[in-house]
Parts: sequence; C-alpha cells; structure tokens
Amino acid sequence: MKKKIAIIGAGSWGTALAKVLEENGHKPVLYSNVEDQIKEINEEHTNKMFLPNLVLSENIKATTNLKEALTNAQIVLFVLPTKVTRIVARQVSEIIEDKVILVTASKGLEQQTHKRISEILQEEIPEEKREGIVALSGPSHAEEVAVNDLTTITAASTNLDAAEKVQELFMNNYMRIYTNKDIIGVEYGAALKNIIALGAGALAGLGYGDNAKAALITRGLAEISRLGIAFGADPLTFIGLSGVGDLIVTCTSIHSRNWQAGNMIGKGHSLDEVLETVGMVVEGASTVVAACELAKEKNIELPITEAIYSVLYEHADVRNTIIELMNRDPKAEAHSKDRK
Amino acid sequence: MKKKIAIIGAGSWGTALAKVLEENGHKPVLYSNVEDQIKEINEEHTNKMFLPNLVLSENIKATTNLKEALTNAQIVLFVLPTKVTRIVARQVSEIIEDKVILVTASKGLEQQTHKRISEILQEEIPEEKREGIVALSGPSHAEEVAVNDLTTITAASTNLDAAEKVQELFMNNYMRIYTNKDIIGVEYGAALKNIIALGAGALAGLGYGDNAKAALITRGLAEISRLGIAFGADPLTFIGLSGVGDLIVTCTSIHSRNWQAGNMIGKGHSLDEVLETVGMVVEGASTVVAACELAKEKNIELPITEAIYSVLYEHADVRNTIIELMNRDPKAEAHSKDRK
Repeated sequence: MKKKIAIIGAGSWGTALAKVLEENGHKPVLYSNVEDQIKEINEEHTNKMFLPNLVLSENIKATTNLKEALTNAQIVLFVLPTKVTRIVARQVSEIIEDKVILVTASKGLEQQTHKRISEILQEEIPEEKREGIVALSGPSHAEEVAVNDLTTITAASTNLDAAEKVQELFMNNYMRIYTNKDIIGVEYGAALKNIIALGAGALAGLGYGDNAKAALITRGLAEISRLGIAFGADPLTFIGLSGVGDLIVTCTSIHSRNWQAGNMIGKGHSLDEVLETVGMVVEGASTVVAACELAKEKNIELPITEAIYSVLYEHADVRNTIIELMNRDPKAEAHSKDRK
Repeated sequence: MKKKIAIIGAGSWGTALAKVLEENGHKPVLYSNVEDQIKEINEEHTNKMFLPNLVLSENIKATTNLKEALTNAQIVLFVLPTKVTRIVARQVSEIIEDKVILVTASKGLEQQTHKRISEILQEEIPEEKREGIVALSGPSHAEEVAVNDLTTITAASTNLDAAEKVQELFMNNYMRIYTNKDIIGVEYGAALKNIIALGAGALAGLGYGDNAKAALITRGLAEISRLGIAFGADPLTFIGLSGVGDLIVTCTSIHSRNWQAGNMIGKGHSLDEVLETVGMVVEGASTVVAACELAKEKNIELPITEAIYSVLYEHADVRNTIIELMNRDPKAEAHSKDRK
C-alpha cells in the first residue's frame, strides 16, 4: 500500500532513500530549509550538491514547509546532522497529530548529553504521537544506492512491528533490510565507527598495511562493543550490518570524511589544520570526546579510542602512540568467553 | 629464554614466522622436503619463491631432515597445506620423544573427514607427546610481517598455558598476540573465510561496490559463525582477529588467491577455466564443499555458501544467484538476541 513518508533532511542519504521509496511505489516528500535546493529538486529533479549524477523521479516532491511535508505522513524519517535533530524533532512534534512511525537514519551522539538519536526523538516527541522509533543503519554509501548497487541495512526497534513496517517499505531487489530489536547496539555502532575510521585513515597516512588496518577494525570493534554493552546493547549486534558491516565500509573507503581527516593526521597535520583545510564536519572528532567521557563514566578501557583522543587533542605523537598500543601487556581477546 | 622451534613447512608464512622468532631471540629451524629451497635458505639466506624481497638472518637454519629439525625442539609449528598435514604429523609423532607444544598456522579443513587441523594433530600425535595444541590465526599477510608492518594474531588453545607460551614467543613491537581458549571457533573462522573471499572477488568481478562487499563480509561472517557455533565454537570468537579480522584482510585484498579466483568467476569464467588458467590451489573451492556437507549434517541454512557452491559446481548463473539472495524472505539479523 502506498504510504506518504516525510523525509526530514535532503542530503545525500535522505535523497537516496527518497529514490528507493519512490521506486517501491511510495510517496516520499523531502524537507529542507534550503530554498534553492528544494527548488532544484522540484524543478530540475536533481540534488547536485549531494548526488551529482542522480536524476530523480518527478514523483519525488520537496518542500521548505515542514507542515506540508508532515501532513498525512505515516512515517517521518529523520536524516539530519545530530546537532540539529533535537530542535527539528520538537518542531515535528508540534505539528503532527496522528501517530507516526519515527525513523532515524543519522549517525551520531548528541554533544554534551551523549544521547543516541532515538533517545532525542523519544524525549521530544511524546508517546501518543508515535507508533515506534526505528533506527536505520548499515554499510550504505548513498552514491551506490543511487545507482541501484546492492545494499543491506538493519532496521532496529524495540517495537518489532514498526521495524517490520520499515523493512517492507525499503525492500526491493537491490535493497535488503534486516530487522533487529537491539536499537541501542545499532545506534552505538553507527556513532562510534567514525572514531575508528579516523584511526584507519591515520594508519594509511603513516604507510601501514592491510594487517594493521584489519587489526584496527577488529580491535576497534571490540571497543565499540564494550562501550555499547555497558549501555545495554546486545554483544552480537556488533557482528551485524550496523556494526562490523558499516565499520568495514567506513574504514576501507577513502571517500569517508573521517578516513580522510585521519589520513591527514597520519601525515603529520594537526586536527586544527585538518579542520581548516578540509572545511568539513569530522564527526569522529567530536564522537571521540563523547566516547571517552562515556567510557570514564562506566570505567571501561578503550585503548584505541583514548589513543586517538590523545593524538587529536593532547598533541601525542601518532607513531609513538601506535607503538605504545602494540606494546601493552599481553592480553586475551577481550570478548572471549574465558577472558583472562 | 631462547627456545628451539621446528617450523614444518617453508612457505611464505612459515618463513615470515621464522623471521619473527629469530628477531625475538629464539632458534627457528625451517623444515621442507624441497632440497633447492632448503639450500637457498641456508646458503643465500633468501626464500625468493615465497618472499622475494626478504633477506633472512644467518641464524635461521633450514633442513630437509625432519629428525634434525625436531631434535631438542620445544615447539613444533605446522605451516603446511591441509592435505599433507596428517601424513607429516604422523612422521613427527614417530620422531619426537619429549613433550612439545604443537602449533598450527595453516587454515583449512581436511577433505573427506572435514576435520580441523588441531583435530588432525590430536589424532596423530598422542597426548603423552604434547603439552598442548595451539592454533595461530589472524589477519596476517606474510609479506607485511616480513617488513615489520604491524600485525595482530590470536593464539588459541584449550590449554591456556600453552597459548600464553606461544603468545610470549611471538610478541614484539610489530607483532601483538592475543590468547583465546576457543580453538574451535578460531579454526572454523580461518578455514571458512576463503569461501567468502571467493564471493567477494566475484562481486568485484561483476562490478558491484563497497556496500555489497561489506554486506557479503557481514552476512558471510554470520554464516561462518552459525556453522562454527553448531560445532561448539563460542559465537564471540567470530568478532575477533581470527574471525572478522582475517575475513576483512582476505576479502579486501586483491592479493588473495581466493579473491582472484572469485574475480575471474564474476567475469564469467568457469571454475575449471579458473583453475586451469591460474594453475594454483584455490582453497575456498574445496572448503565450500566441506562447508555445505557440514551444514547439511547440522541442518543449518548457509545461503551465501550454498550460492557459491551452486555457481562453482552446478553452473548457476552468478548474477541471477545474487538477485535470488537479495530477494529471499525478509529476515531478522540471525545473530540478534530476539531472532524472528
């Protein structure tokens, strides 16, 4: 059955998801507050700043009017930078009248509060206005979804009905969606992978090889898992698409912003220089602060995360820091059943 | 304390491990039955067929005399093709008198019996001649270890003392070893990853992108885990270095033989053509047979593994097979706590 979906945020991922939904016979409406972009989508059927080569179906509408986007929508999909999610969620809450399924497809932790995006939505949109909150996450470059390349994603919710509705919405012969009830694990995996991507970029910048990269991804995954588990995640979620799957894509693709920033740092630039030069948001650089604070709160050791923090913010020498990591006391693999 | 280690097999991995052991102050002796190779190692201090750029220390000795290699060895390290391991283990057993630690650094399942390598060693070398059996596995291109690139590996054994001795043997500032008691999980991960590498090569050969590769690795890991768990592995081992770590290296490196074979198959060649053209052992092609039989025995679904089997041995069209995989019934992530 055809559904209206309000997509809040018209960046590359929001646009790619709109394309999938339209092809699946639904009615997506993109919302953004950038007039020119909305005009371009409605009149030229392109969104060139984000997906330069994509021509959108004329059935995909866009608007700067949040109320118009939300009217009769059964699903509201948030694809916003983490830092503006709370304020926009509040606006959405004031407008919607009927119960909607809330979906988040962004990846991050709120600054200061360190909250997950679904927690923000839960706080800002009262229970009587929502049918469930679903987090959509997995290895998914928007550029590849835009050309119908095979992509798999997890739809996570404590409300399995809501997760299954979202699964049905997106499934087709190039998109495969798996449900998962562990939204906590899915959101921590999504947010924390950007820290490890910084590290992967740094290793490459220093000239290290594939063994080192695989080690970083694996031991980074162990840290992501440890932190997520301390906040209630199911350990096995991290072995899934939103965990290791997304981590692999982010750490092995030179297109990842976080990887690029890490690469510059590996080549000897400071974080300030990197941010100045590339003039872009490096999410991992703020998530690493949140992760270190969360780890402290739960008294968890995150050696790689802490090493990345010390390189970014305490002028630690990156090569020495790596050697120190290698020379730590011999250990058992921390996720082993019989940990030492 | 300086130890004598007999390394049975002088291929690239055995040679790289000899180099590490010598640098760590031990006395490795390489054994092979190829006269010319042994002569080259002893006289030229190279092993060019396997590691063209490496110059070995003169302290590394090699021999075609198994007894000479084993005399006074405290550790016997097997780095042989799986299919010859049983026969050589039997020879070793006849020679050794004192208890030794047995280490396996090979990856595979025995044809017909489908046994793990540690099981072969256990059957062929009686308990009174061994202090423990340790499996060494992780993301480790020998070429990178040869140039002191950072590498992490798991040393797995039900005998933690033995695992810790092996850990101590190899640790230095470019090699970091983690112990793990789950040798079953470590060995299944090592053997089964080659199947998924074939699939990764095929996806690349067909022109699919990073999302698809990450999906294959992740869902492939789920299959490896399912099969391993059915045979007694700890699920969390597969999130470790010998599981996801090794899988990442094998699936994202074009140097992997299995990846290369898969790539040719993705481009439309048959398995026979591939084997003929490249003239090399493609371990994944035999392991996939074992995996399908083991799955049948335990009544486990392995859709990716079975799809690879049907492409290799039943002339299934590779692109149609992928589309069928994408269009299976909607599912929950199978490792989720609340599986559907």
